[in-house]
Amino acid sequence: MAVIPIDDPLDARVAVFRDIRERDLTGRQGLFVAEGEVVLRVLASPASRCRPVAALIAEKRIAALADVVEALPPETPVYAASQPVLDSIAGFHLHRGILAVGEKPAPPPLAGLLAGMGDDHVVVVVACGIGNHDNMGGIFRAAAAFGAAAVLLDGRCCDPFYRKAIRVSVGAVLRTPMSRGLGARELIEGLSGAGFRVLAMTPSSLSPLHLSPRGGRTAIVLGAEGPGLPPDLLQRCETLGIPMSGGFDSLNVATAGAIALHHFTREA
Amino acid sequence: MAVIPIDDPLDARVAVFRDIRERDLTGRQGLFVAEGEVVLRVLASPASRCRPVAALIAEKRIAALADVVEALPPETPVYAASQPVLDSIAGFHLHRGILAVGEKPAPPPLAGLLAGMGDDHVVVVVACGIGNHDNMGGIFRAAAAFGAAAVLLDGRCCDPFYRKAIRVSVGAVLRTPMSRGLGARELIEGLSGAGFRVLAMTPSSLSPLHLSPRGGRTAIVLGAEGPGLPPDLLQRCETLGIPMSGGFDSLNVATAGAIALHHFTREA
Repeated sequence: MAVIPIDDPLDARVAVFRDIRERDLTGRQGLFVAEGEVVLRVLASPASRCRPVAALIAEKRIAALADVVEALPPETPVYAASQPVLDSIAGFHLHRGILAVGEKPAPPPLAGLLAGMGDDHVVVVVACGIGNHDNMGGIFRAAAAFGAAAVLLDGRCCDPFYRKAIRVSVGAVLRTPMSRGLGARELIEGLSGAGFRVLAMTPSSLSPLHLSPRGGRTAIVLGAEGPGLPPDLLQRCETLGIPMSGGFDSLNVATAGAIALHHFTREA
Repeated sequence: MAVIPIDDPLDARVAVFRDIRERDLTGRQGLFVAEGEVVLRVLASPASRCRPVAALIAEKRIAALADVVEALPPETPVYAASQPVLDSIAGFHLHRGILAVGEKPAPPPLAGLLAGMGDDHVVVVVACGIGNHDNMGGIFRAAAAFGAAAVLLDGRCCDPFYRKAIRVSVGAVLRTPMSRGLGARELIEGLSGAGFRVLAMTPSSLSPLHLSPRGGRTAIVLGAEGPGLPPDLLQRCETLGIPMSGGFDSLNVATAGAIALHHFTREA
């Protein structure tokens, strides 16, 4: 695959990479921008669930990334530019020197997604109202590290394909099966109907996580930091808590999720 | 305690709050700047190990924070300014509207710190070469959540009193006993000599964390993301790993630390 040199920041072929920060704020229909080598490697790998649309790389980094460039589909253009041209296109100093645009996969219907999963030691994460992109990225990173079968996001969650969330997830957002846009109640009912134990993590629970049996189909429900899960949702779930030291604020939501994943994905 | 109004951004009494970002970069001798209500509440609480030096609060927030202002020592001045004056002092838009300056506590000698701890179910965290302030804050947050007796930082770690690390820790940096500046080898030898099992978390370990016995004195050693712990340090420790799903990057170091803390701080 030939790399296409770009000398003019206004070149129409790289318009999709222009003024990234502003586009982050306004949101994108169908496309996302990712940055950095780790994420580009995931996007180019067979594990990715997203179609790579284009890549834009600092020319000084092209040689070291030859294998990644080669791994991209032949129809994906790879552009190379000097660092000043790259910075001018992006609208800020892009010290990582690597940008890629990909296509968000269409979220599959929940029933079909769940039907394709196994029956034992299957764990999914349900995220409700997660508004912080660091937490979103952290939830996906942990889900991938522990082999969760999917991450299900309710309609109040922020966009997991936001550049920072992808980066914090070290690319897990691009490879993890997910559902987006359903209400939390629909998700919980769909999971219960498909034979999942639906377990809400909440500091107020008197049932400690580490005593909860594992195996079968398990859904770990995480709520927003601060308010947590609304009472009407908690009533539809078993609740579990992580015992903590008195007098201190609760754990970060992504950390609590990782601790629960560690518990439920173990074989014994 | 009377609140002191500030109308002039150049008022010498608030010089310590000036151009915070630039000062973040150059570092501070002995003092730190913290921001936000959660952190101010910790600084004003009996749990804080840091002397509050001064606070600067948006005047529209003063009424709601009357109890915190009251909890500060009478010799700590509390300044109030309009949002534009506040922004002008800080050098950027301070949407949280709350700044405080405190004094870093002198780190106690390691032997004395360890001697004051109990003998059973005592857990400390050792952080080696942690260079990222988010991770540093996350390690302190988890240490406080699980009641770790101390966090011991080797000389290659970044400053835990950097503003962002304090914020991510939700104030735990201000209340957690810590040691700073010793070499990792000195820390490990000091801990071994004081009867601690020294357990290094590393993805390469064949011993899974969840099978490791708890109780007694335990030190959890965490290395930098990416390179991890150097081989000469690993040889001086037992190693433990967190089994993960094949083909994915390891966990975030703060998350791995939290999972280990959850394991070792449980009673059963």
